[in-house]
Amino acid sequence: MDLQMLTDLYEFSMANGYFATLPHERQARFDVFYRRVPDNGSFVVAAGLQQVVEQVNNWHFSPENIEYLKSLKQFSPEFLDYLSQAKNRCFIKALPEGTPVFPREPILSICGPLIEAQLLETFVLNIVNHQSLIATKSWQINHAAQGRPIMEFGARRAQGPDAATFGARAAIIGGCTSTSNLQAASRFNIPAAGTMAHAWVESFPDELSAFQAWAKVYPDKVSLLVDTYDVLKSGVPNAIRVFKQVRAQGHEPVGIRIDSGDISQLAIAARKMLDDAGFKDAKITASNALDAHVVKSLLDEGAPIDNFGIGERLITSSSSPVLSGVYKLAEEKVNNQWVPTIKVSDSREKITIPGNKQVYRIYDNDHPEQAVADVIALTDETLQAPLKVVNSNPQATNANKVLVNFTAQPLLQDCLTPEGPQKIESDVFKIQQHAKEAIGQLPEATKRLVNPDRYPVYLTAKLAKLQEELIARADFAAQD
Amino acid sequence: MDLQMLTDLYEFSMANGYFATLPHERQARFDVFYRRVPDNGSFVVAAGLQQVVEQVNNWHFSPENIEYLKSLKQFSPEFLDYLSQAKNRCFIKALPEGTPVFPREPILSICGPLIEAQLLETFVLNIVNHQSLIATKSWQINHAAQGRPIMEFGARRAQGPDAATFGARAAIIGGCTSTSNLQAASRFNIPAAGTMAHAWVESFPDELSAFQAWAKVYPDKVSLLVDTYDVLKSGVPNAIRVFKQVRAQGHEPVGIRIDSGDISQLAIAARKMLDDAGFKDAKITASNALDAHVVKSLLDEGAPIDNFGIGERLITSSSSPVLSGVYKLAEEKVNNQWVPTIKVSDSREKITIPGNKQVYRIYDNDHPEQAVADVIALTDETLQAPLKVVNSNPQATNANKVLVNFTAQPLLQDCLTPEGPQKIESDVFKIQQHAKEAIGQLPEATKRLVNPDRYPVYLTAKLAKLQEELIARADFAAQD
Repeated sequence: MDLQMLTDLYEFSMANGYFATLPHERQARFDVFYRRVPDNGSFVVAAGLQQVVEQVNNWHFSPENIEYLKSLKQFSPEFLDYLSQAKNRCFIKALPEGTPVFPREPILSICGPLIEAQLLETFVLNIVNHQSLIATKSWQINHAAQGRPIMEFGARRAQGPDAATFGARAAIIGGCTSTSNLQAASRFNIPAAGTMAHAWVESFPDELSAFQAWAKVYPDKVSLLVDTYDVLKSGVPNAIRVFKQVRAQGHEPVGIRIDSGDISQLAIAARKMLDDAGFKDAKITASNALDAHVVKSLLDEGAPIDNFGIGERLITSSSSPVLSGVYKLAEEKVNNQWVPTIKVSDSREKITIPGNKQVYRIYDNDHPEQAVADVIALTDETLQAPLKVVNSNPQATNANKVLVNFTAQPLLQDCLTPEGPQKIESDVFKIQQHAKEAIGQLPEATKRLVNPDRYPVYLTAKLAKLQEELIARADFAAQD
Repeated sequence: MDLQMLTDLYEFSMANGYFATLPHERQARFDVFYRRVPDNGSFVVAAGLQQVVEQVNNWHFSPENIEYLKSLKQFSPEFLDYLSQAKNRCFIKALPEGTPVFPREPILSICGPLIEAQLLETFVLNIVNHQSLIATKSWQINHAAQGRPIMEFGARRAQGPDAATFGARAAIIGGCTSTSNLQAASRFNIPAAGTMAHAWVESFPDELSAFQAWAKVYPDKVSLLVDTYDVLKSGVPNAIRVFKQVRAQGHEPVGIRIDSGDISQLAIAARKMLDDAGFKDAKITASNALDAHVVKSLLDEGAPIDNFGIGERLITSSSSPVLSGVYKLAEEKVNNQWVPTIKVSDSREKITIPGNKQVYRIYDNDHPEQAVADVIALTDETLQAPLKVVNSNPQATNANKVLVNFTAQPLLQDCLTPEGPQKIESDVFKIQQHAKEAIGQLPEATKRLVNPDRYPVYLTAKLAKLQEELIARADFAAQD
């Protein structure tokens, strides 16, 4: 669906205002970044770029859109005519999807005519905030599962159809192996997963007939839901009976799924029953209200779970369901000269980082596989040791530091020009692989799920100085 | 967008299994209901019916869908051929959107061929869960705001594009007056709201020039964002200067918006400055991370706020972001006879209510505007006093009760047949009005935002007896 109208009214009000008061070709740069990580984590897994690039590249207004905007009776005919001709003239640079990104670092940066770049804000934030949120939550749960496969099962509890489908994509970026949602599976080439619901079992006179009927239809996919009546008294014994029949016919059963009750105790007891009956390879899948801390607690208790199916707590990131990414002006071209801009505020935390920037991941030359910090620099800087930097976190003590003996890898890449998209990775499992590698380079303490160590993000001394100058100038403007 | 593929794989696996093992024309009824209310509230505001009816009515599979399903190599050619011809043959009855609904009551009930009704589960739940969740949160915030207008501002933080647009619709059902999201505004005929962002102020040399430029473009819409630099030292004084200029030109200013800092103190101080300057009618709008309890606390403190703009905490229902509605088999037609079904479980709370049911709202004849309880009955029952009922809540004590001197209003209405949709209300403000009236009939204690009194939901004695019989029979089946 086209998203040019998924835009807040005030974006159009401002664009019409700029059109009336400023040179139409005034250029501007906006950065997308966030300040706080969901679930008190230390980083976010960037996601959503593919959809952003598609939507911005395709940006236009239909005659119906223009008719609607006209009906609001607040836009000039000249502005509406301008919109009716508009097509994308913006440039986007961004972190590759799957890259771990820290507070205040640009996830993406959009540069183009001020009027047009302003009109992209709402839907760009919507996409990046949503997909990055779910990719991050997925990473957390997968980290807790220590390599056990996780199936994304949340479509029915997602916040609307897009949340189900783009959320499933983001879940794969964060490390899940499959999704139950066929819209996502077919659209993004993701393996589809799942077997039966309780309704199947209830549609037969008894549980055993239901399991037998399943085995008849899917002899090589005998994965049985064992908690419709009673897991240990009925479900597992009936599953074992059917497994024996299946094996007698030359097929090896897949396993069982437990979706209610005390998963840990039930899994331990079911494992023993399966093993005793000679089905040591039958897998146990757990589902029902799982999240990173529940998965960790089950595994800490030694619950013999082979796979997880995770629904609502992944697809909505329910423990922390908002990523508050923002879209802030970083520079403007005035009289043919780029001028860095800042937003100051009563809260120090809300002060923005001005200018056209690059984000570098810093590797220690003695441990080249280990990222030790990020540095945000102006694009006209080259990073050379010894490098004077300042902590970007306004709460940090020991703010100044000199970096030596490092290699700096630039992270922001060109993704879209007015001519069209650049080559960006669209294979969701290659993006997942990039996420695994890039997160793998971070310190272990940064990846801790509870109370992680804050990974340092620095500004170059030059950028920090620019920021301080602009804060002082803004104070002056405010008092003017 | 068509949602037939927003369906979990296991629905297709089961449908293909039914196709192979059961009579193809086996009829079934599924109920949608929930067990727990978000935010520990006592009821949910039903929403999403319009989109459900559109999607089910339009249900079909394209050649591309069939090709994809074929590629999964687990469905019979006969089943795929059946799907390629499929169109809706299901009937839907449902509560009108905006109706307050209690745990275990059917929000909607779908009856049709088992194979086909099974395939609707995922997207029907997705729509009803999402829209009802947001309508409920919206009602809670609007209840806290005691009639002050609330603008829905959450598009950029919603969980994907659909969540923004259908969420805005649900926010209106719950009582909001407008939305900033023009996709929602244009699609559902909702007033669009909003003025300027910080970026506008930053695009001019100083705040005063930015405000003056705005007033020049929108002389009759002078609503100014005053927290870009410093609310009380800069924003409000500059706003007052511009308000005076505007008034001198014959226009009355609209007001100011505060989006950061201590909203309560800032609003009190700003109100005094505006009043002292002669702008007693200028409105103060508050935004920034508001939710029902923050709105209540601001108003309890006497903060002079006229309007609220509410973003992420409304559009994601962030304090409780999941409504866990389920889709459960209630009856099946076997050998031309409808047979009620039940799902029992290790958790008593998860046991379903069997049969084809109607939900009645019970009014005390001495206070005909006051709803006192709901009764769930089988559709072949007529409700007459004295009526023996049993509390539907398995945790309730004093479970049995006799109702006298009441009027019973049936709530579930026919909405869709295989011939097409019945007339249902599509005007979102008429749905909002219905919600206001229906919620207005509930006891005050039921509407409390914190620790509400549980409103009684009863089963008729006949329905309770049927449920107990089926539980006993299920125990028998499990041991069989």
